Parts: sequence; structure tokens; C-alpha cells
Amino acid sequence: MENMEVNEIFDIAIVGCGPAGLSAAINGANRKKKVAIFGTEFCSPKLHRAPSVENYLGLPNLTGEEMRKRFLGHLDVMKLSINKNKITGVYPEEDGFALQAKDKFYKTRTVVLATGVSTVKPIDKEVEYLGRGVSYCATCDGPLYKGKKVIVLAYNREGLEEANYLAELAAEVVLVPVLSEKDAQGVTLEQKIKVVKGKPKGIIGEMWATGVALEDQNLSADGIFIIRESVLPDQLVPGLEISNQGIKVDRSGATNIPGVFAAGDCTGAPYQLSKAAGEGQVAALAAVKYLDELKNKAREQLATV
Amino acid sequence: MENMEVNEIFDIAIVGCGPAGLSAAINGANRKKKVAIFGTEFCSPKLHRAPSVENYLGLPNLTGEEMRKRFLGHLDVMKLSINKNKITGVYPEEDGFALQAKDKFYKTRTVVLATGVSTVKPIDKEVEYLGRGVSYCATCDGPLYKGKKVIVLAYNREGLEEANYLAELAAEVVLVPVLSEKDAQGVTLEQKIKVVKGKPKGIIGEMWATGVALEDQNLSADGIFIIRESVLPDQLVPGLEISNQGIKVDRSGATNIPGVFAAGDCTGAPYQLSKAAGEGQVAALAAVKYLDELKNKAREQLATV
Ligand SMILES: Cc1cc2nc3c(=O)[nH]c(=O)nc-3n(C[C@H](O)[C@H](O)[C@H](O)COP(=O)(O)OP(=O)(O)OC[C@H]3O[C@@H](n4cnc5c(N)ncnc54)[C@H](O)[C@@H]3O)c2cc1C
Ligand SMILES: Cc1cc2nc3c(=O)[nH]c(=O)nc-3n(C[C@H](O)[C@H](O)[C@H](O)COP(=O)(O)OP(=O)(O)OC[C@H]3O[C@@H](n4cnc5c(N)ncnc54)[C@H](O)[C@@H]3O)c2cc1C
Repeated sequence: MENMEVNEIFDIAIVGCGPAGLSAAINGANRKKKVAIFGTEFCSPKLHRAPSVENYLGLPNLTGEEMRKRFLGHLDVMKLSINKNKITGVYPEEDGFALQAKDKFYKTRTVVLATGVSTVKPIDKEVEYLGRGVSYCATCDGPLYKGKKVIVLAYNREGLEEANYLAELAAEVVLVPVLSEKDAQGVTLEQKIKVVKGKPKGIIGEMWATGVALEDQNLSADGIFIIRESVLPDQLVPGLEISNQGIKVDRSGATNIPGVFAAGDCTGAPYQLSKAAGEGQVAALAAVKYLDELKNKAREQLATV
Repeated sequence: MENMEVNEIFDIAIVGCGPAGLSAAINGANRKKKVAIFGTEFCSPKLHRAPSVENYLGLPNLTGEEMRKRFLGHLDVMKLSINKNKITGVYPEEDGFALQAKDKFYKTRTVVLATGVSTVKPIDKEVEYLGRGVSYCATCDGPLYKGKKVIVLAYNREGLEEANYLAELAAEVVLVPVLSEKDAQGVTLEQKIKVVKGKPKGIIGEMWATGVALEDQNLSADGIFIIRESVLPDQLVPGLEISNQGIKVDRSGATNIPGVFAAGDCTGAPYQLSKAAGEGQVAALAAVKYLDELKNKAREQLATV
């Protein structure tokens, strides 16, 4: 899957590689659908951290890490692999959706969101200015700021790397590192980058974002990049309905957007493995049903021509 | 659990011992709740019959029977065992529910229904006459028909045994066997029992049931016992809301009756293991939350006295 053709169309694209995403993947593949699984580097940090899991039926007394290996082993058995890319946007297209990962787009007929719970709180006005001077993806939107000034709020190591990438394009890059020194280790920043320490409070602007308010000073720029581990679901998928529990779904895992399903921690509590795996199965099977209905409709239309 | 005290009160009583019930049990026990699992002889026939299961995350390529053994093994690890009794009725009580199994009652604060999908269709007017001359449990209602005439519609081996039991009480017993010869093997019927072959069509009666209509004749009696493998959920729990999908539940597994939750195939499609296990977990955790809220309310009331 690493050398996935960008022009191919998947039946089911799964965003997230924790138990919910993996269960969706094996269930979609089991039904002979063309499945893509997108996951950031490590699948999944939460599972890895669980000290001991006693409540996943059939696998008593494993550590989270042992569980994680077993789950990934199941993918191997099914000859599935994970595309190690973070998806930063899901956009509707004529016959489905386009998923943005860095500078690439992947096409799919249906989407299963399995992004896990995100405890991230956006900073003040971040969501309002998204797409108007605020971006989550340097590779995607960097070229817009050629010869201009940008600020990068880096909440993880990837943020430092994105700042380096932007240094090649922008005239000025101001980096606000919001991560531990340990996480930053080993990344050498481009000379051009100016590092400013401080806690980001909010975005400043009028029609368009013009800067960032830190606790003790304001920074100004033409564009602001916010790089965090996770993207909030409604920012990932414009128009997605969210409640204070998580992504709103019905019992089949369907969201308010036809063709987009969700499973696991991202749909709300309880935050548990077996619930995540079960919902991944249900969402994948609902996507299969949706695909079959699409095909039937297409056949009917052909028959009436 | 075999020598469970009839007077003890369980926190969570689980009706059904397939993957949904077992997952509910390990999750309830994991949260230190007093759990009872009720299951008919073999847990579960469906799981046993699955030739090969490839879509339960973490356990690829097992037969249903291997899966079944692993699931039951998980119970052993948690030191839980199954009470091999069929529950025939769930009735509200002051602080919870009473579960009827043969001539015993078990008390519980909450119930998780995990009875699997039931393909059984009641015969005509069966549901209308339930409790008015029609019964599902000879041990429970047999004594009402001392010296009277009863009909037993036996859809399984247990039905034959129930007919024998009724022969000790009733003046006349008419048995309509609706099972294969293989299933009937080895049961010796009491001499008093009159066997009538035929296909039951419906119940006859006015205010009270007075007999059974077979395809080619009518039989009359004071009471009618219908003994099948499974009890329909809304007959098991009077007042339970059912849709054409199954038991109606919200995303936490809660039914329309406070304190009664449901999980697995009995809540509707897709009929799958991982969905069943996930829902068992969700229902058990919802029951735990309900119990904790009950306790808090009791504390508050105590504080205001
Ligand atoms: C310390 C600890 C102990 C726990 N113990 C237990 C336990 O005993 N029992 C139990 O049942 N549960 C336990 N849990 C909870 C369990 O780990 C979670 O419920 C489960 O991992 C949720 O699965 P998920 O697939 O929904 O999300 P996650 O496991 O969070 O996986 C989501 C994955 O998707 C990736 N992702 C997110 N967004 C994107 C994107 N835009 N593009 C690409 N990839 C993306 C993330 O990086 C992550 O790898 C524990 C959790 C912790 C932290
Ligand atoms: C041939 C076959 C192949 C299958 N293959 C797969 C597969 O590959 N993958 C997959 O995910 N699923 C598969 N399934 C489906 C899977 O077996 C079911 O979805 C699963 O068993 C449902 O679990 P459950 O706990 O809801 O119900 P069940 O497994 O049906 O368990 C319910 C149990 O409760 C007991 N019970 C019911 N009422 C009472 C009562 N009143 N008192 C006491 N006990 C009661 C029943 O006797 C039964 O033992 C298959 C099923 C079959 C038949």
C-alpha cells in the first residue's frame, strides 16, 4: 500500500489505525472491498500505553503493547498494510471523497473516521480563521505563502519539520515550539527560523488572520500553521456534526454526511477497545451496504437510459 | 455460581451466554460488580456452528468452536461461571428485577439482555393469551393445573421433560412433539401422556385460552405450555420495546425500561461477534453507571432525612 496509486479509487478509506480503524479494515477487506488505512507513524499510542487489558473478550491478561502487536498481526494475515500518512482534510467529490495527506490526494467512495478521542482544545478563534490564514498542513498550503511571513505553532516534532519545510518557501518563519525538549531532540532547525517561546492564546485578525496572541506578546504574520498530533473531526471533515460526546453517529455508525461513517473513541465514551473494535466492524459493514446500494442505483440508472 | 443463594442480590444479571453476554460479564466483573450469567445448556450454538471466523480483531483464522473455547476460557480467568438455567421471565421489583428460572427467582438491580437473535415466530394468538392459559414454563405454572388437562407444544427435548413433569400434576397431558426424532432420543415419556402429531397453527380461546388449533384438528385443554429454545424478548420482559430490527436500544445499550440494557444479535443486525462483544461491554458499563447513580441517589436521600 506504500506505493498506492494516487489515481486509484478506494471503496473504503479508513482514517486512523487504532483498534476501531483496524477492525473496520479487516471487516471491509473480508467483504472484498478495496480498503485503505491511513495512520500516523505509530498505531496506536493509546493502545501502546495501556498497562494491562483484561476486558477484551478472548484475549485476557495482555499488555496494551501485546494487544497492539496482535491487532497489527491480524492485518498481516489479511495482507493489509497501513499508509503512514496523516490525513488533514476530507472533501466531498462527485463520486465520493478526496482525502488530503501532505501534498497528495487519495480518492475513495466511502470514509470511516476512526481517529480516536482528541483532547485537544483549539485556541481562541482558531476554528473561525481556518482557511482564512490558519492552516493545519504546511505541505498543502505552504506554497500560498511564498515570499511571505508565517508563524508555526508546533505542538509536536512534525511541527518542527514543517517549519523547516516552510523555511524553503516563506521569507520569514517564526516558530513557537509547544512541545517537550525530549520530543524536539534530533531536529536541526533551518537558520532562517526565528524561535519565540510562549503559550499560544488565540488568533488575531479581522477578515483574515493577521497574527497570534501569546501570553505575553502578539506576533504578526501573513499565515499561521498549527501542527498538532490530531485534527479535530469537524475540522478534518467540513460540515461534520459533532456533539459534546464526539462525532454524532446512528447505530450503524453513519454520520450526518452520506458515505462518511465513524467508529471508536471518536464517537464518544466509553473509551474502550472492544467498543472500538465492534464499532469499527459495524461502520465497515454499513459502508459495504452503502457501496452496494450505490452500485444498484447506478445499474438502475443504466437500465432506464 | 451453581450454588448461588437465591436471596442474594446481584448488581448485573446477564441473560444469555454468547459473546455479548460473556463480554458484558467480564466487563461488569472488571468493575467489581456482582455479576450473574444465565445461559441455556450450551454457550452458544451459533458460535459453535461458525465454520471459520476471520473478522474478530486480534484472533484471526479460528473456527467458531475454538473461539467459543477462548471466550469461555476468559470467564475462567476472571473466576466467573455460568448458571445453566433458562430465564423465562424478567419482572420489575422494588429495588430492581426478579428473574424467573424454572421454580427459582433471582434478584438483581440491573439486567443485560444478550439472548441472541431469535428466528422463532410465535403461533397465532400465542402472545395475546400469554398468562391467560398460555405459559412458557411448566415448573413455574404447572401447579396451577393440578388435576386439570394441559397441552404441551414441545419444540425441543426440554419440552418432553416438561411434559413428564406435568404428568405428575395434571389429570391429562396431551403432547404435541414439534422436534426431530434425533432430538427426542433417550427421553421416556410417562404412560399418562397422550401424543398427538401435527403442526400447531394457533391458540383457540375467548377470554382465556381453551385449546390449540393444529393443521387438521383442534385440541382442547385448560392450559397450554409452549416450550421452545428461546423466548422472544418482549415476552421475556413485559413492556420491552421492540422494533422490527430487535430490542430498541440507544447508543449506551439502554432499553425503554430503566435498568434493563441489551447487547448483541438481540439488538439487531449486523449479526456479528465483534459487534456483540463491543455492545456487551457498552451495556455492562452503562449498567455500572446506572448502579453508581442509584447509589448516589440513595446517599443523597439518606443525607436529607
Ligand atoms: C493508559 C491507558 C489504559 C487503557 N486501558 C484500557 C483497558 O484496560 N481496556 C480497554 O478496553 N481500553 C483501555 N484503554 C482505552 C483504549 O486504548 C482506547 O479505547 C482505544 O485505543 C480506542 O481505539 P480507537 O481506534 O478509537 O482510537 P486510538 O487507539 O486512539 O487510535 C486512533 C489512531 O488514529 C490515528 N489518527 C488520528 N487522526 C488521524 C489522522 N487525521 N490521520 C491519520 N491517522 C490519524 C492516531 O494517531 C491513532 O494512532 C486505555 C487507554 C489508555 C491511554
Ligand atoms: C454458521 C454461522 C457462521 C457465523 N460466522 C460468523 C463470522 O465469521 N463472524 C462473525 O462475526 N459472526 C459470525 N456469526 C455470527 C455470530 O455467531 C453471532 O453474531 C454471535 O454469536 C452473536 O452473539 P450473541 O451473544 O448476541 O448471541 P448468541 O451467540 O446467539 O448467544 C445467545 C446465547 O444466549 C442463550 N439464551 C438465549 N435466551 C436465553 C434465556 N432466556 N435464558 C438463558 N439463556 C438464553 C442462548 O441459548 C445462546 O447460548 C456466524 C453465525 C453462524 C450461525
